[in-house]
Amino acid sequence: MRIGFASDHAGFELKERLKAWAQANGHQVLDYGTDGLASVDYPDFAHRAAEKLHEWERLVLVCGSGIGISIAANRHVGVRCALVTSPEHAALARQHNDANAIAFGQRLTDPLMAESYLKIFLETPFEGGRHQKRVEKIEI
Amino acid sequence: MRIGFASDHAGFELKERLKAWAQANGHQVLDYGTDGLASVDYPDFAHRAAEKLHEWERLVLVCGSGIGISIAANRHVGVRCALVTSPEHAALARQHNDANAIAFGQRLTDPLMAESYLKIFLETPFEGGRHQKRVEKIEI
Repeated sequence: MRIGFASDHAGFELKERLKAWAQANGHQVLDYGTDGLASVDYPDFAHRAAEKLHEWERLVLVCGSGIGISIAANRHVGVRCALVTSPEHAALARQHNDANAIAFGQRLTDPLMAESYLKIFLETPFEGGRHQKRVEKIEI
Repeated sequence: MRIGFASDHAGFELKERLKAWAQANGHQVLDYGTDGLASVDYPDFAHRAAEKLHEWERLVLVCGSGIGISIAANRHVGVRCALVTSPEHAALARQHNDANAIAFGQRLTDPLMAESYLKIFLETPFEGGRHQKRVEKIEI
């Protein structure tokens, strides 16, 4: 899959780790920054990545908690970003919400767990059916 | 505080429980539905509550996972909804993101824990400072 990645400085290390995991697992990686540990503002990178919706099939976003960068990404029509903190969240985000973006908090999620949640997220199909209508109603 | 509540059927029981907790703790409760266990679509209730932004000071949203209802709420300018699954998420959502809405997944969060996260969310102030600029940049 073509997977976009973006983070702020507080999520940079986990972004780099998940990028490496994705490349090692045969995915194409698109990096929308940030590119280091210098302090930046998470909405800049959420918006930059969200606006490139046509470039990626899945988007991975990381900030300190995962909260700010997911709120900003969800301002964008067509982006459905789930803040994932368990295997159940990763699976339900795909099954019920057809989420195309996943957010992590580097401060709050173990990197190995984040890799396992991302794997579930990438492998789980959308269930469609009654959930399709609901996903369409997300847009205002 | 004036606290709005909304859920779909899969979050109805936890919404009712958190409403009772809020009332018992001296808060004013505004209920935007749903009002029972009949199947409904979470975006309808997210949008209804989000559009009443002027009525509430804090908003509590519940669906099965918390993911869908928080994505839909975050489509609205001025609503900053955090999906909270730990005390740290509850505190950081307020400290760094000035979140005014909190989402829970009834299937994935113990009700007693949800009450404790809501308590933290209501009592934790926004830190302002460098976070203020970032919060402003969330809006597109």
